[in-house]
Amino acid sequence: MLRRGFQVAGRLSQHRVLPGVPQVLPRLILTSTFGSSTDSLVSRFCLEKTGLKDYALPNASWCPDMLSLYHELQEKTKTDGWVKLPSFKSNRDHIQGLKLPLGLAVPSDERDWRIFTRCIQVEGQGYEYVIFFHPSKKKSICLFQPGPYLEGAPGFAHGGSLAAMMDETFSKTAYLAGQGLLTVSLSIRFKHLIPVGSLAVLNVDVEKIEDQKVYMSCIAQSRDQQTVYAKCSGKEVLSPSPRLCPATITHRTNGRKNAEDAVPSRDPAS
Amino acid sequence: MLRRGFQVAGRLSQHRVLPGVPQVLPRLILTSTFGSSTDSLVSRFCLEKTGLKDYALPNASWCPDMLSLYHELQEKTKTDGWVKLPSFKSNRDHIQGLKLPLGLAVPSDERDWRIFTRCIQVEGQGYEYVIFFHPSKKKSICLFQPGPYLEGAPGFAHGGSLAAMMDETFSKTAYLAGQGLLTVSLSIRFKHLIPVGSLAVLNVDVEKIEDQKVYMSCIAQSRDQQTVYAKCSGKEVLSPSPRLCPATITHRTNGRKNAEDAVPSRDPAS
Repeated sequence: MLRRGFQVAGRLSQHRVLPGVPQVLPRLILTSTFGSSTDSLVSRFCLEKTGLKDYALPNASWCPDMLSLYHELQEKTKTDGWVKLPSFKSNRDHIQGLKLPLGLAVPSDERDWRIFTRCIQVEGQGYEYVIFFHPSKKKSICLFQPGPYLEGAPGFAHGGSLAAMMDETFSKTAYLAGQGLLTVSLSIRFKHLIPVGSLAVLNVDVEKIEDQKVYMSCIAQSRDQQTVYAKCSGKEVLSPSPRLCPATITHRTNGRKNAEDAVPSRDPAS
Repeated sequence: MLRRGFQVAGRLSQHRVLPGVPQVLPRLILTSTFGSSTDSLVSRFCLEKTGLKDYALPNASWCPDMLSLYHELQEKTKTDGWVKLPSFKSNRDHIQGLKLPLGLAVPSDERDWRIFTRCIQVEGQGYEYVIFFHPSKKKSICLFQPGPYLEGAPGFAHGGSLAAMMDETFSKTAYLAGQGLLTVSLSIRFKHLIPVGSLAVLNVDVEKIEDQKVYMSCIAQSRDQQTVYAKCSGKEVLSPSPRLCPATITHRTNGRKNAEDAVPSRDPAS
């Protein structure tokens, strides 16, 4: 979802200019953004000293499997090129961390905005997860531990909570690996239920980047790989199309009043 | 997810008997459950006087579109065969409402369990939704209003929140229409972003029931049908297969300790 927030203006292709909203963001800014390399994107994404709470850090709710695999992967960040991605309360915070040009900043809003996968802030009750990304391999590993607020069948994670976790991991990966913008398709085959409180390991690969789309795959399984929870494939649009990034790019206020005026297209082919 | 909760014992097909867990639920009970008609299932699902809070009722956060369409559909419950489904905090509450045989009851647990789509209880911040079901047409309409805790791109609902809403609507519909058990596949094509605070109308149809599966489709769009947010197809397994409902059906405690011992299969073909 980061690249979604990061490219919000690009996605906010309006069919009309919203009232009271300044027209900003010449195409030049977006172009320079898209010119960044993966390494540069990762560096900017992982800026330290943002003053923001990183929710992708161990806490007392993490199960032993989650904790030990986290430390194992942390070791690999020192030697094997893996990068641990920070995870803030909102994509708005990620945008802030990226120090985007002023024109891309999201207007202030009094509401308590949260990225969906950080909607529950009580440790262990909702989503516990951390994503590690490998820039040169263009793959990610997401450690996901669903809490009791993510329940579907009693004692097990709701399929939708796993779908959202996969979408979020695709999003971050697609942005950093290929500057993907938005998820346009997601196809999931569920195999086994994930017990609440246990670890699911999501291995995400960028299969190819073609026709302005990032093609991705994911397999979610137990740490010992003996149980496959689900398999998933997805596509993300890669760069601003005429529909996604029109000559006149407009910003929007996020007030309720205008909510229904703003319906950006995800898929240029739609 | 209801039919998930309702049929939890059927789904909890274990490869081994869990320690300390009584062996209960002869096949007869499941068979009689599956022998129920849609009308009977709906009647039991919609039992009043449960003493449980129904979250699928209007509150001050609902936007005018959501509110007016809710009232329009409520009118159709009186004249056109539509049924408004209640929505409790947890599928455990739905099981309670269904007055299942004692053996099917979920063991008590001190944790605050919540169905994922009711994980946020502050009005307007998370999921606001209500599902109407039509027993003879075997279709549902879900009114969905994402709040600011469901954000992806700034100002818009996370794709994963819509995926979960679709999965949940599929689940309830599949159970009531065809006694579907578990989602085994979900394929979503995203078209446009849903502005936070606005209404998305999900129209769900049961396409066919074949080969022990319920085949479903969903289109999510604006009330005026001018904007398609996403299209989705999904499959739910229909009845206990030898893998889903073995001769020895076991119950499980939902304690963390045993979480990783219990990995029921969703798909008998997996």
